[in-house]
Amino acid sequence: MSVLSLDLFLKEQRQELKRRLPQYISGIEAPKVLLDAMAYSLEAGGKRLRPALLLASLQGYGVTLEKGYDVACAVEMIHTYSLIHDDLPAMDDDDTRRGKPTSHKVFGEAMAILAGDALLTLSFEVISKSENLEDHEKVRVIQLLSSSAGPAGMVGGQVADMDAEDKHGLTVEELEYIHHHKTGDLLAFSIEAAAILANAPETDQIHLRMFAKNLGLAFQIKDDILDIEGDGEKMGKPLGSDEANQKSTYPKLLGLAGAKEKLDWHIQQSKEYLSKIEQKHPLLHELTDYIAKRTH
Amino acid sequence: MSVLSLDLFLKEQRQELKRRLPQYISGIEAPKVLLDAMAYSLEAGGKRLRPALLLASLQGYGVTLEKGYDVACAVEMIHTYSLIHDDLPAMDDDDTRRGKPTSHKVFGEAMAILAGDALLTLSFEVISKSENLEDHEKVRVIQLLSSSAGPAGMVGGQVADMDAEDKHGLTVEELEYIHHHKTGDLLAFSIEAAAILANAPETDQIHLRMFAKNLGLAFQIKDDILDIEGDGEKMGKPLGSDEANQKSTYPKLLGLAGAKEKLDWHIQQSKEYLSKIEQKHPLLHELTDYIAKRTH
Repeated sequence: MSVLSLDLFLKEQRQELKRRLPQYISGIEAPKVLLDAMAYSLEAGGKRLRPALLLASLQGYGVTLEKGYDVACAVEMIHTYSLIHDDLPAMDDDDTRRGKPTSHKVFGEAMAILAGDALLTLSFEVISKSENLEDHEKVRVIQLLSSSAGPAGMVGGQVADMDAEDKHGLTVEELEYIHHHKTGDLLAFSIEAAAILANAPETDQIHLRMFAKNLGLAFQIKDDILDIEGDGEKMGKPLGSDEANQKSTYPKLLGLAGAKEKLDWHIQQSKEYLSKIEQKHPLLHELTDYIAKRTH
Repeated sequence: MSVLSLDLFLKEQRQELKRRLPQYISGIEAPKVLLDAMAYSLEAGGKRLRPALLLASLQGYGVTLEKGYDVACAVEMIHTYSLIHDDLPAMDDDDTRRGKPTSHKVFGEAMAILAGDALLTLSFEVISKSENLEDHEKVRVIQLLSSSAGPAGMVGGQVADMDAEDKHGLTVEELEYIHHHKTGDLLAFSIEAAAILANAPETDQIHLRMFAKNLGLAFQIKDDILDIEGDGEKMGKPLGSDEANQKSTYPKLLGLAGAKEKLDWHIQQSKEYLSKIEQKHPLLHELTDYIAKRTH
């Protein structure tokens, strides 16, 4: 499997999501402004990394992708709700996201809160009503998604991140807690969910979780590095924003060389866990390399 | 079944919930401030009407209450999250709730948003991990809860309510849309969920939904009436607040006599739908009378 085929896979799946995501919204009987606000953020694009991880893992297991689209779209809904709420004035107070005005800038603060609530709730409806899953699969996926996205997962990570803003000088451990939960848990969910849908051995799920945890940290460290030496034009945001915002980052805590060393280590670890799984996952291998080498 | 036994049942179940609700929070590995914020609102009390409806319906079906507690607690978590978010400065901007400072007054706005998000997510985790339910029951309950609480349900009702604040002179139909969704859908869920857990005939679920819709409206109309002629001391809030806030209410649209007539009609309707069900539900009959006659 070459990088070209990874590119093609990611592009195709982004197209699939672009086609499918609006369909979950359009049929809902609800006030139009709410549906507009939900669709606005859901269709704003982005990397669609979580669905891509889920679908690439399913492909590795030789399971038809059709089986995974509802869950892939559900996790994207949860990711999207978390961005809407994170951008709120009471939180990060961001005016733009992916080059577009944030939800509360367009629809007002109250509607942004409610659009986020609606997307979070809808994600569980989508999984529970999927026509491609058995009841026992739905239950396991909902168990995993709710614990990954809830207080012990993503929301807990966001709280720790907020607390960190008032502190100066986080330790590497504190920084890692934030990233593991704020972003890592939902990435791990995406990959583990594929193991559930593929009815893979339970050890696979454990190894995939460790793979995902390392991959998630690698992704974050790379983000921090790109903020210093990336291509600002390609990234669609100015460089040096972490420095300007006095954010705790890996380069700040470990130096740029130390951060790069840590990045290499987590990429290495990712690959090691991936190699423990009998089933070959060529797309996940490629994706790991892509994350290590991406320039934006 | 006398009113005394309804009182006793409600009191006992409030005690059960008081004992059980904190247990879902205390074991979670998450930042302490988040758990504190979740527990603060969840343990603030209130009528526990939704759990009471679910448990009273289960009792009517002769199903052990143990089977329903996880779902009863889950729906209370969703109700609580909706109150936290409704009270936010961007929404109703309320400083007190049930005689205590609102969540954002104690924990700040960001934490209130996140505590709400966490409670909403946890509710699905609690149902999906319940040890007292089969997978097919979990799936049906989650389908119903997510659609009742999401954009087509409670969140949609909240959006319509917000829109109404900018309008003068709602029609009765518009007012009813708001109440049906903002409060009615979660009340209906509570009763329908019992029918699912009791494996009742599908027609029961339909009749119970109609029962609940009428009961929910009756509850709301009574609320509006009490705001005019209730016992302010017992209610724990000043009378006439609807009038002061220029809120659209049934007495405003129909006159006080018209509102009372409508209340009677919906109570009548509730009882008629309830009588269509083979299984006797004495507690639901009593509860209907209680709602019609309550003084606070």
